[in-house]
Amino acid sequence: MKVANRRKFLALGPALGGALVGCSGEKKQQAAAEDDGPNRLGKPVSEYGERSQFEKTHRLKPETKTPEQASTKTPLAEIHGMITPSALHFERHHAGVPALDPAKHSLMIHGMVERPLLFSMAELKRLPSVSKIHFIECAGNSGSEWGAKPAPDAQTSHGLVSCSEWTGVPLALLLEEAGAKKEATWIIAEGADACKMNRSIPIAKAKGDIIVAYAQNGEALRPEQGYPLRLVIPGWEGNINVKWLRRLELTDQPAMSRQETSKYTDLEASGKARQFTFVMDAKSLITFPSGGRKLEGPGFYEVRGIAWSGRGRISKVEISADGGKTWQAAALQDPVLPMALTRFRFPWRWDGAECTLLSRCTDETGYLQPTRAELIAVRGMNSNYHYNGVHGWKVEAGGNVTQVVQPV
Amino acid sequence: MKVANRRKFLALGPALGGALVGCSGEKKQQAAAEDDGPNRLGKPVSEYGERSQFEKTHRLKPETKTPEQASTKTPLAEIHGMITPSALHFERHHAGVPALDPAKHSLMIHGMVERPLLFSMAELKRLPSVSKIHFIECAGNSGSEWGAKPAPDAQTSHGLVSCSEWTGVPLALLLEEAGAKKEATWIIAEGADACKMNRSIPIAKAKGDIIVAYAQNGEALRPEQGYPLRLVIPGWEGNINVKWLRRLELTDQPAMSRQETSKYTDLEASGKARQFTFVMDAKSLITFPSGGRKLEGPGFYEVRGIAWSGRGRISKVEISADGGKTWQAAALQDPVLPMALTRFRFPWRWDGAECTLLSRCTDETGYLQPTRAELIAVRGMNSNYHYNGVHGWKVEAGGNVTQVVQPV
Repeated sequence: MKVANRRKFLALGPALGGALVGCSGEKKQQAAAEDDGPNRLGKPVSEYGERSQFEKTHRLKPETKTPEQASTKTPLAEIHGMITPSALHFERHHAGVPALDPAKHSLMIHGMVERPLLFSMAELKRLPSVSKIHFIECAGNSGSEWGAKPAPDAQTSHGLVSCSEWTGVPLALLLEEAGAKKEATWIIAEGADACKMNRSIPIAKAKGDIIVAYAQNGEALRPEQGYPLRLVIPGWEGNINVKWLRRLELTDQPAMSRQETSKYTDLEASGKARQFTFVMDAKSLITFPSGGRKLEGPGFYEVRGIAWSGRGRISKVEISADGGKTWQAAALQDPVLPMALTRFRFPWRWDGAECTLLSRCTDETGYLQPTRAELIAVRGMNSNYHYNGVHGWKVEAGGNVTQVVQPV
Repeated sequence: MKVANRRKFLALGPALGGALVGCSGEKKQQAAAEDDGPNRLGKPVSEYGERSQFEKTHRLKPETKTPEQASTKTPLAEIHGMITPSALHFERHHAGVPALDPAKHSLMIHGMVERPLLFSMAELKRLPSVSKIHFIECAGNSGSEWGAKPAPDAQTSHGLVSCSEWTGVPLALLLEEAGAKKEATWIIAEGADACKMNRSIPIAKAKGDIIVAYAQNGEALRPEQGYPLRLVIPGWEGNINVKWLRRLELTDQPAMSRQETSKYTDLEASGKARQFTFVMDAKSLITFPSGGRKLEGPGFYEVRGIAWSGRGRISKVEISADGGKTWQAAALQDPVLPMALTRFRFPWRWDGAECTLLSRCTDETGYLQPTRAELIAVRGMNSNYHYNGVHGWKVEAGGNVTQVVQPV
């Protein structure tokens, strides 16, 4: 035991530089004085807690004249674990956040069904329910990486992904109740925002794992996430997870709506556009160290990040500290859940020299996250959506961390 | 398929009474008009989200002259899934919530160690980390059930339990760094609140799964939960999960502090007190239907609740709708995690007659939650702590739900 402790100490101790300070005598007294805490009573209990006055982490507001038709991103470098705080979940609105009264909100299921149905929120909450932890990612997440101009930090490059525990009614159950006619092949989902944003969903997925969700991370959905009702479509691009859900119409063709024709299609190099590219492919991102940070000197660091796949569980994350020459497996935090963010960690000793840190992931289907060159060779560079190339950060000799753009 | 749908419809439809309304013609138009939503732009994006103005769920403030030395409870009947919203995590403070500046906060590890250590928050965050979903439960939770006077609702009876994803440094790692001397058998953990609340932890547990946590549900700990640093001691009574942690002293005996002598000990019928009764035994609670609710009439309801054990995973939850004569297995929501709340669900058709709903759980050690009579036969009725008897709700013929006190 003693030897093991000593070995452990030698491995980590110097890695922290002056971090592991022996505190005896004067130093201990100083520590005790500094750390004496307030000796008066603190704040009383409260009805609904708020974060500390010292915490300032926030979503970056875009510089825009139309903040109702805009997005904000999750500060990925400042958060921890698998669950994204609801207050920091990314946003993407097309007509602002409506203030819907749940007592007046309803969901209509109609079109090619045996029995058109209308549910109040109270009625939905009586039905069999499910709770699942899933990421939601905008199709445009990391879209800036298609270009040659690197984004400065993790929030800017990849912040359009977040992960919550969602609770609601399985859509499959509602469809069984309504009785989908056999000619119904699509469902058009419509929101109650001012633009009545709508998207078309193939019925096979609708009979699968989609949740008509009314709760997020234990409480009611946040307004920006569709209060009081939204679709959660595990693994599929964010835009189709329709928020402020008010209507589901079963049809025999897609709506060909604005958001699935002029937007959220992928223009290939040939000039042809891929449409209905729903699934978010496997992606990983190192969140520490990441752009805008400065390492304080050589020594031990824990490289941390997140990986996710719209096709199931993450099975492996590998880290390269030499720009892709060699790769080593990172540890995955359990539980590793399908279509959920998976936290990875990798112990790393920085020698102080300039280096490039990369991550790549593999999902349970065997799919390996492609390099930027591999992705562009297949998809071209015309699209704004579905970028999932291997991403890197350069650690400069002085400790500053900046983004690397991988060569094509 | 058609037959299956019809069967499903017949099973659920009448169960909902008038809930599944066919909407065609006039009804459909009315629905569309009611549900038209605002046709003006909604709110813009924001830096840090807040819940809807329509949501009022809150912790009940106690009627007390000393709200700094008090507790609030999680509204268990109003929350969903496994994760408790941080804003609704139960509270128990002995000297109020201190406003600690993380830039000035430190953790000292000293006493019977080879190398006394002092860590700033920044230094702790560089070390290898872990994220785990665990419940924390006050030893006094459901303590009112020892008596014969029933608590009116789930929050009042059982609301001193909550569950979060905690991120921090394994305490075992810090102890390896410090080098615990072999005579060290206890660790005294001390908070930075005004009363410097302290508790003693056997070193075996400290070398196990304890987390020195700085994050909760993705962001920094909430002030009421120990910001910026606390212990998370999986499965052990809440009081020992010391908040605002500032000092860990290794010793060869427990501190015998106020909170482990006059409080948090269990007086048996014989007059002897059990001390250091750390582990929270398996417990379950039906949260819907629960006290204070009123069922709207006969038909289908999903019985929902939570189960947890300080000894590992929940392996089974059973529901009785006839006061304990017969039991049926409930569905457990995956992932079922050790020392975490586990959501259970049970489809139930109420015939409108008075009945008693009970839940009982079994954990992976094979331990079965005892009846109230079984518990009292072993422990007597002198203690305020560690009540985990089977709990029930009476559904009256009119639909009102009240608590049942099981006979001794």
